[in-house]
Amino acid sequence: MNNSFGSLFRITTFGESHGAALGVIVDGVPAGIHIDPQFIQQELDRRKPGQSAVSTQRKEADCGEILSGVFQGVSTGTPIAILLRNGDHHSADYSNVAELFRPGHADYTFQKKYDIRDYRGGGRSSGRETAARVAAGAIAKLFLKENGISIKACTSQIGKIKAVPPPYNWENVEQNIVRSADMDAAEKMALAIKEAQAKKDSIGGAIYGEISGLPVGLGEPVFDKLDALLAHAFMSIGGVKGIEIGDGFEVAEKLGSENNDQMNVNGFLTNHAGGILGGMSNGNTVTFRLAVKPTPSIASVQKSVNIRGEEVDVEITGRHDPCLVPRIVPIAEAMAALVIADLLLRNRASKK
Amino acid sequence: MNNSFGSLFRITTFGESHGAALGVIVDGVPAGIHIDPQFIQQELDRRKPGQSAVSTQRKEADCGEILSGVFQGVSTGTPIAILLRNGDHHSADYSNVAELFRPGHADYTFQKKYDIRDYRGGGRSSGRETAARVAAGAIAKLFLKENGISIKACTSQIGKIKAVPPPYNWENVEQNIVRSADMDAAEKMALAIKEAQAKKDSIGGAIYGEISGLPVGLGEPVFDKLDALLAHAFMSIGGVKGIEIGDGFEVAEKLGSENNDQMNVNGFLTNHAGGILGGMSNGNTVTFRLAVKPTPSIASVQKSVNIRGEEVDVEITGRHDPCLVPRIVPIAEAMAALVIADLLLRNRASKK
Amino acid sequence: MNNSFGSLFRITTFGESHGAALGVIVDGVPAGIHIDPQFIQQELDRRKPGQSAVSTQRKEADCGEILSGVFQGVSTGTPIAILLRNGDHHSADYSNVAELFRPGHADYTFQKKYDIRDYRGGGRSSGRETAARVAAGAIAKLFLKENGISIKACTSQIGKIKAVPPPYNWENVEQNIVRSADMDAAEKMALAIKEAQAKKDSIGGAIYGEISGLPVGLGEPVFDKLDALLAHAFMSIGGVKGIEIGDGFEVAEKLGSENNDQMNVNGFLTNHAGGILGGMSNGNTVTFRLAVKPTPSIASVQKSVNIRGEEVDVEITGRHDPCLVPRIVPIAEAMAALVIADLLLRNRASKK
Amino acid sequence: MNNSFGSLFRITTFGESHGAALGVIVDGVPAGIHIDPQFIQQELDRRKPGQSAVSTQRKEADCGEILSGVFQGVSTGTPIAILLRNGDHHSADYSNVAELFRPGHADYTFQKKYDIRDYRGGGRSSGRETAARVAAGAIAKLFLKENGISIKACTSQIGKIKAVPPPYNWENVEQNIVRSADMDAAEKMALAIKEAQAKKDSIGGAIYGEISGLPVGLGEPVFDKLDALLAHAFMSIGGVKGIEIGDGFEVAEKLGSENNDQMNVNGFLTNHAGGILGGMSNGNTVTFRLAVKPTPSIASVQKSVNIRGEEVDVEITGRHDPCLVPRIVPIAEAMAALVIADLLLRNRASKK
Repeated sequence: MNNSFGSLFRITTFGESHGAALGVIVDGVPAGIHIDPQFIQQELDRRKPGQSAVSTQRKEADCGEILSGVFQGVSTGTPIAILLRNGDHHSADYSNVAELFRPGHADYTFQKKYDIRDYRGGGRSSGRETAARVAAGAIAKLFLKENGISIKACTSQIGKIKAVPPPYNWENVEQNIVRSADMDAAEKMALAIKEAQAKKDSIGGAIYGEISGLPVGLGEPVFDKLDALLAHAFMSIGGVKGIEIGDGFEVAEKLGSENNDQMNVNGFLTNHAGGILGGMSNGNTVTFRLAVKPTPSIASVQKSVNIRGEEVDVEITGRHDPCLVPRIVPIAEAMAALVIADLLLRNRASKK
Repeated sequence: MNNSFGSLFRITTFGESHGAALGVIVDGVPAGIHIDPQFIQQELDRRKPGQSAVSTQRKEADCGEILSGVFQGVSTGTPIAILLRNGDHHSADYSNVAELFRPGHADYTFQKKYDIRDYRGGGRSSGRETAARVAAGAIAKLFLKENGISIKACTSQIGKIKAVPPPYNWENVEQNIVRSADMDAAEKMALAIKEAQAKKDSIGGAIYGEISGLPVGLGEPVFDKLDALLAHAFMSIGGVKGIEIGDGFEVAEKLGSENNDQMNVNGFLTNHAGGILGGMSNGNTVTFRLAVKPTPSIASVQKSVNIRGEEVDVEITGRHDPCLVPRIVPIAEAMAALVIADLLLRNRASKK
Repeated sequence: MNNSFGSLFRITTFGESHGAALGVIVDGVPAGIHIDPQFIQQELDRRKPGQSAVSTQRKEADCGEILSGVFQGVSTGTPIAILLRNGDHHSADYSNVAELFRPGHADYTFQKKYDIRDYRGGGRSSGRETAARVAAGAIAKLFLKENGISIKACTSQIGKIKAVPPPYNWENVEQNIVRSADMDAAEKMALAIKEAQAKKDSIGGAIYGEISGLPVGLGEPVFDKLDALLAHAFMSIGGVKGIEIGDGFEVAEKLGSENNDQMNVNGFLTNHAGGILGGMSNGNTVTFRLAVKPTPSIASVQKSVNIRGEEVDVEITGRHDPCLVPRIVPIAEAMAALVIADLLLRNRASKK
Repeated sequence: MNNSFGSLFRITTFGESHGAALGVIVDGVPAGIHIDPQFIQQELDRRKPGQSAVSTQRKEADCGEILSGVFQGVSTGTPIAILLRNGDHHSADYSNVAELFRPGHADYTFQKKYDIRDYRGGGRSSGRETAARVAAGAIAKLFLKENGISIKACTSQIGKIKAVPPPYNWENVEQNIVRSADMDAAEKMALAIKEAQAKKDSIGGAIYGEISGLPVGLGEPVFDKLDALLAHAFMSIGGVKGIEIGDGFEVAEKLGSENNDQMNVNGFLTNHAGGILGGMSNGNTVTFRLAVKPTPSIASVQKSVNIRGEEVDVEITGRHDPCLVPRIVPIAEAMAALVIADLLLRNRASKK
């Protein structure tokens, strides 16, 4: 319940940052999908720490081992489990935070909810938890690829630096360390991150993404609308504080005549709706935008309290990403892929 | 699956705009809650059409009849069903749209998904569907009230008119026809709606809301985070295109030192996080903001296609809300109440 | 959760025996199924009280009203709600049991679980609850019929009277008041019921059923095996105390060489397995047998305690079925239909 | 969906007999439960092959490694994953069955459902799958133990040899190789198994079990009745073909006056109901009985067809249990424990 996502294409994840391992069971993968372990590893590598000058210098191998559900290179219809052993344990880095509640972190809420928490590296609330999502998302992407569907995301903003608006040359994204599709903005974004880091601080940003190749009618009309499930999926990523579909908050200022996407025989004339009408895909590209908060772990002094209710000064001295955005890009793609894979299967039950 | 929402406190709704009735089964209401039918009716009245000069002139009685689950004024632990008979059938208003796809509506996607649709008044995709949510939300609110939790929302923006920022005098909200907490802005907002309507057009807006009285630790840490479930709930309301928690998209421009909520012995010094840390309530007020698109039904001429793929001109001549925002306010509250009621019950299983 | 059954083809029921109404929402019915209200009513009539000399003389109209989800005679893919108004309220019949726990009934357990119960006619634990299941099962049967699948059940035993073993002439079943496929046994069964009733007592029995026309591979291999879901469904019917699939308890005495169903090019040579291998249908007829306890409501004196813990003598004087079996026959069919309809939809997701 | 069981205390399993590993994620374990790895291993050892002269001589270490969810010996509220690496791969033992459908096995149904199957050792349909259930069940038992609830099962019948009826000295069960509570019958049962094996055959049997220490009111009144969930759980174990609660099929022959459990101030005078009334525990011991078919893998010649539809003769020559019953005893306990743990948590939501 708590650690599962999806209905028919359903994942269940486990694992703490500094426990033995983390992993995922992907249940409901239809039989007959070609499962490419190299692609899964590539996706894990996009998320892993230590990739560049603007990400944490922590090194984690993040090798995904497929334990089940694949036979002769193909999915068998049984659950696919993927294991990610934890290595590089610097528990010592965290011993100083065992008894205190780091500002902006889940330490306080975990402690109050469960009366116990695995404080090593954030435990279950560590960003490391998302590695399991990316592994599962890679399997979803393989399924979607066989259905002609692709999902792409990129960094659209870091601090005050914004990328030019879409359309984008998506091949740029992996050509710069911040994962922007705008190569000029990318340089400035990288600079902004380094400046924040130099000041013992961190910086926020935004992500833009597109889902293309969807059939018309994906999504369930009332509660499990396509956009509702995407919002659930994205908002479940730590650090995401805002979500927009299509024109998002701009619609608040618009008139109906400006916002409606009219049609002719070739389809929709505009795409203000971001590809979704009444909670179902309308055949246009689905577009979304996510707000990502600055990393809460910063090296400058902050006020907090400890587990005994005493006031303390906190300096987070471990190796942390000064900006979460570039690493959240593949996680957002993974979550979107899981939503679409699930709805694609659910859609098979819509007609007699 | 499709028409249910929630896990332990779980609703299932049914009903088309012009069918015999719509309604809801609220399952998982704990035994012993005082169920006040008048409060349920008040909530339904807040949502019903024909309330004011800025809402549709369609009259619907929206009388909720409790069919089960209440004995001697108290919930018994069995499912509470509420029935809302449809009246005021002006099917003729819709006969002209039976074969065409109205811009901004779900006509096209419904037809493609199911190969059939009940076109009368939008059928299942009518905003009327939300009456069932409001009835269920009223029961959730009664449960929350006994737990000291309250949920309030208001109109924060119509077109370019924005209310002053919070804190608000919440008693203002029901004192003006647009449901703004800012009485001065309310007048201008009403004017903006009337202007749009006069131009055979409609207008968008935004909603701001607060959830207060939450215990610390509500929400499930990974996929069913409090904010993720709220995002799911809000985005499942037709017309909502954007969601923010706490500072929302503003975090993209901020530094960690600006965004982290530091603590002292009295609690958090700020509330940028909007009351949620690691997906769990932190004891602060939960704050959210929603973007609502302009009503897609407008009387001016629009281009579209019909069910046979031919291009047509469309003029929507029925009685429609020129702005959805004031009526979505109680719906947003209802959805938030359902999320909180569910998490409150789920939280009972967190410790031994 | 509590009052829902099924995964994709999913029902949610509500209603107490002496409340305003009971009913069901059938969610997940694929669009395009012809919905025949007369068939639904026929099925309800098979379950309703007052049908014959061996059932209760209580009269309940049990008219099912379809409230949603059907347009122009066809399912639209939206939830189908069916309402059954309660009539014939003789609450006075039950006032004497308001404070005591009737032996064999759920009075005691309901009171302890919820601290409150609607004691009128058994409230939610009344057999009347199953009317909603039968209405939903009728819709499932209509879906299954379009897929060439049929479900039949009959009374195979009343007290010590047993019907001859299958194969049966199924047309006999509705030709006698006990619903046996063996016309000779039927007479003796009816006599046994009348004898029990004359002694202010009641009597138990057994049901045999068959599901035919299934494709190979229905059922999910591990936890949601076809037989596991059937067992869940049947055991959820009040009064059922035992379930057998295929040879059932006879397998305990058998050798593997006797029990295995060998194959040749024409299929299986025997059907000891009752049509299920590894939890999946194997193309043979699925066979099941259910044990049904004697009606707990009997007119003779029994010892019990009341709500204050005092010992009392109980005589149940209302109008009750002296034997539940004939009326459970259509309920068992309905539950089987719901299981198969659900698995049929789930099976659509098994291959790429 | 397919490979998960439970609602709040929920397990998800994975793994094929001859893949890299199998395992389980136990989600919803409340924080604060003492997790004893030795107890988990003991339970796994009770299920493992190669224990005695009457079980398969295959050796499997079945070492359970806890990967997450436990910190300082205590559950943290996060998912507990347990990994069981596969060893002792004699894939060669199975190569001869790769293309044929073994009688009584899931080979045929798997192939038809998915168009592909991992035929090595039965793949996902191997009894080995149940090791994950036993590991999860051990965690459930640790939770139940802290709530004063215990679950015991034993072999009550092998072929024509039946144990004396309960009450039992439960300490006998692990003192004989067939796991009977009746030491005299145990010897004869062991002999019956050896005789079957000597004839290249296998033999069926039955299991009896008790759940004691339950509070009154466990179970959800309509579809998720305690007995319905137990039936689901037990019938999901490969080889189980019949289930009885309390007096089971004996009720078919009884009168209401014989079957009702009357009460006085000390509680129920009898326990025909097997501790369950209206689907909820009544405070008495819950009793159940399961029919287990003879092992389908037998060494004598059987007729079957292969994957190309050709008729073949089959001799199953691997190392197989001549009787499944003794090894299913701990599996049945595990499944019962999972049901009870789940209902115990769900019950927390029943009152305000």
